[in-house]
Order: sequence, then C-alpha cells, then structure tokens
Amino acid sequence: MTILLDGKIVRDSVAGELKNKILGLEKKLKLAILQVGNKEESNKYIEQKKLFAEKIGAEVIHVRFSEDVSQEKICAEIQKLNGDASVHGIIVQLPLPETLDKNLIIQNIDPIKDVDGLTSANTKLLWKNEKGHVPATARGILTLLDYYKIEIKGKKVVVVGRSQLVGKPVALSFLNRDAIVIVCHRGTSSIMSETKQADILVVAAGNPEFITKDFVREGQVVVDVGINVKKSEHQSEEILHKKVVGDVNFAEVSPIVSAISPVPGGVGPMTVLSLFQNLLDAYIMIEEK
Amino acid sequence: MTILLDGKIVRDSVAGELKNKILGLEKKLKLAILQVGNKEESNKYIEQKKLFAEKIGAEVIHVRFSEDVSQEKICAEIQKLNGDASVHGIIVQLPLPETLDKNLIIQNIDPIKDVDGLTSANTKLLWKNEKGHVPATARGILTLLDYYKIEIKGKKVVVVGRSQLVGKPVALSFLNRDAIVIVCHRGTSSIMSETKQADILVVAAGNPEFITKDFVREGQVVVDVGINVKKSEHQSEEILHKKVVGDVNFAEVSPIVSAISPVPGGVGPMTVLSLFQNLLDAYIMIEEK
Repeated sequence: MTILLDGKIVRDSVAGELKNKILGLEKKLKLAILQVGNKEESNKYIEQKKLFAEKIGAEVIHVRFSEDVSQEKICAEIQKLNGDASVHGIIVQLPLPETLDKNLIIQNIDPIKDVDGLTSANTKLLWKNEKGHVPATARGILTLLDYYKIEIKGKKVVVVGRSQLVGKPVALSFLNRDAIVIVCHRGTSSIMSETKQADILVVAAGNPEFITKDFVREGQVVVDVGINVKKSEHQSEEILHKKVVGDVNFAEVSPIVSAISPVPGGVGPMTVLSLFQNLLDAYIMIEEK
Repeated sequence: MTILLDGKIVRDSVAGELKNKILGLEKKLKLAILQVGNKEESNKYIEQKKLFAEKIGAEVIHVRFSEDVSQEKICAEIQKLNGDASVHGIIVQLPLPETLDKNLIIQNIDPIKDVDGLTSANTKLLWKNEKGHVPATARGILTLLDYYKIEIKGKKVVVVGRSQLVGKPVALSFLNRDAIVIVCHRGTSSIMSETKQADILVVAAGNPEFITKDFVREGQVVVDVGINVKKSEHQSEEILHKKVVGDVNFAEVSPIVSAISPVPGGVGPMTVLSLFQNLLDAYIMIEEK
C-alpha cells in the first residue's frame, strides 16, 4: 500500500496548531507583502497567503507598487518596514520586473524579518545549521515528512535539481538533519542509478513527469516539488484544457513506491504554511531580542 | 600506477603564472592579515603566507592586536582597511580568542576584499554559482585536480565531512562544476558503501587515517584534506615524535586507487596559493569597479 503524502491534510492540521499559538500572542502577528505591478499569477499567490493568514489569525499588509517604481522607492519602503515594530515579516513577491535588481532589493530586508529566507544572512545560517529562516519549500518538505513520521537521519536522500530556491536549500536542510545527501541535475548521465538508490527522492527539476517507473524502486519515499502546466491540445483546435503535473509520473511511480506526494496537493500547500511558521518564528525572535 | 597529486609541484607551477600576472599589474598587490594575540600555530601560518607573498611579488601588512583587544577596535581597523584603496584583501587569522565574536568581525570585511571567502555575501555567491571568493581549501582542491586534468563534470564526488569551512564549500564547488555530489558524515552508517561508489573521494573528516583499504576501490581519485598530528608515545616515556597524517591511511589506500593526494604535501600547499589567487581576483574586481 502506498502512503499518499497529503499536503492539504498536513497543512490544515499544522495550521490548527499554528492558530492556537498565534491566539496566545500578545501582539498581532503581521506580514508585509511587497508587490510590483499586477501579474495575474502573483495576485493569485498573494491572495492564497491572505486567505491563509485570515484562517490562522495573522494580518497581512499588501503594498503594491506600479510597474515603473524605482528601486530606491522599494528599498525605502523596506527600510520603513524593517523599523516598524508591528511588522514581523517582509516578503517581496517574485518575479520582479527585470529592470529591478532583485538581489539588491531583498538584501535590504532585515534578516530576522526575511521570512522567505532569501537574504545572504539566512543562507549562511542554513549553511551553518544555525537558527534562521529556511526557504518555505525546504521547510515544507521536512514538515510533510515529519508529519508522516518518515525518518530522515542516516537516510539516503537524492535531490534532483540544484536551484537556489529549492534544490540547494532542500539539500542543506536534509544534511542538517543528518541524512546522506546526493544532489543530481541535468548534467548527470547516471541519474537513473542515483535515484534508484535513494531512500527519499526529492524531485525539483522543472521537467514535467520525467521521473517514470524506471527511476524508482519499491520502498522509496518520493517527494515531487515540480509544478508544470500541461496543455492538452487537439490538432488545429484551441487548447482543450490545462492540467498541473509534477516532475514525477504519478500514475507510473505511485504503485511502486511506499510513499509519494501528489501534484497538486503535496508540497504546494505546505509552502504557505511554512511561510507563516517562519513568521511566527520571526515574532518570537523579535520579541526575545 | 598510482598518480601522486603533488600539491607542492602544482603550487610552485601555478605560483609562477601568478607571479607573472602580478608583475604586470599597475599597483602593488596587497593583503592585510589581522591577528589577535600571539599563538604559535597562527604565527607559523602567517609566516607561510608572508613567504609565499614575497615569492610572487605581493605585499603583506600584518596587524597584530593584543589578546585583550576590544571587538570595536578590530572592526574599526577592518573599516579602515575596507576604505584603503591600496589594500585588496583582508583576512583575520583564526582562531580568535573566544571572548570575541568571530562572525561579527568577519562580516565587517568588504566582500570584495574577503579573500578567505567567509562573509555571508561570498557564501551566497558560491551558493548561486556566481563570481565571488571561494574558501581556499575548496579552490585549492579544484586547482589540484585541474592541474592533473582529472575530469569533474558528470563525475560522482563523495565528500566525507560537512564543515562550514571545508565540507560544504567543497561540495558546492563540485556541484557548480556539474558533478554529482554526495555528502557523508559521522552520522552515516553506510559510509563505506558510499565512498566505494565515488569517482572522486574527498575526505575532510578530521579523523586520522580512518579511510582504510576497505573504503576504496580501483580507479578512484582520493583527495585527503585531513591534517592530524599523530603522537607516538612509548609507555611511560615522553612523546617520541610528532607526525602529521591525513584522514586517509596512505599506505593502505595508495596502492589501490588511481590517484591520491598525500598528507603533508597534497591539499595543504594549495591553500596558500588559493588565497593569493583570490587576492588577485579581488584586485581585478576592485580595479574594474
């Protein structure tokens, strides 16, 4: 029997605990979201965050700048929020227009309030296995596995993908939890023999359904971080429908392995949860200072 | 036949090239070394750096503080050196007395002048595979392998050890060179089966001669980063002699594998070279600004 690593169930369960903790806080827990422009995709993600915040009793300030805002203006707003004791977390909704220097903007965020874990200071803390903000996807994966009591220490974890936002923080997070960590990527010819050796296989390759039955074996735990939109077309007709698929061919792989996270409904729902877990951590760090 | 990865030969050869490049510079290439106290071990390392600098035509300023110096005074000196256009690199000789906050002090160094690659900014650049200063040991290992034309791309690299100063930067450096990277550590029970799978095995475990013949197989490249002082004692007598050994049992392993770096004389000599390669990079970055 394959266990479905159901991100929605875990999110809702942990969100309940989070809500209780937030209820017990003296001050309101507050997140600031900075957005530039009006991208539909970004609006959707921000809306999800607002809804989740409402559910757990946190507050969101949404600051939207026009597409042609200057870098200086965004940085000044961040500085203002850094100094605002009522704000515990600051995130910049990505992507930003290419005219702006993303890294420079993000580096302006006070590391304690950087609940996306994107500043150099937080990367360094993850690197050193010290207390800081871990990017949401990495934290979400660990929360998901912990919920299902999947052991990590001493296990062989193969991470496919080495992106700055997912692959690398995921690899380090597992390393910090005493796993043996193997990082593979596109340049890896022997990828199939690597993935088969994994106790836990984490796929963040951005390649729709490329992990087929040939990449896995019995007894494995598979975590699919991919989010790919598959468009079904029919000859000269219009696009028939859009479907979101992961990097794992779920139909082929799920009967073989012992546990798997679906797409959608696996890691995805965990990321919003992780963001607000980071926010609560930030609150505690700020109040303890 | 086993190839000896001879760090002294490579250092001297690359030092020759470095010297020629330095000769062609408009300004003097200058490194500032900050030392607190008067540890014998630190004096020795600083002396090595000074000798190497002299050999390649670079200049070293050695600033020594007394053991009871305040943090503020060190940081003020760093700020002064940051602003000094004639200085291209600044390093703090470690270890520092425990009363001082090492991280805070190092974070004061301008990342461009941080030729030890220890600031968060440089960790982040390594993380992102962007141009910055890579810690000397990691850079030295790659230079050593490149000199002997050992291919890295697509190879399976097993790193034993996950320290902030060696294991992690080494792992990321290989990942940035398109290797498959496996990180093992003390917590790894199956370490023997991991190390045997490596094409390139890098050992930085701080455990004298613990890689025996049982950990390796034919055809491997073994890089030994360990520096352990082995004291031979004889019953109730005084210590008879001190010997430096690596993390690899050289006598057992060297006949089996296809290439190996000795200790001493392998990675050790490469680190001073790497420091001054970073210094030259810093010069170019500063002058290009």
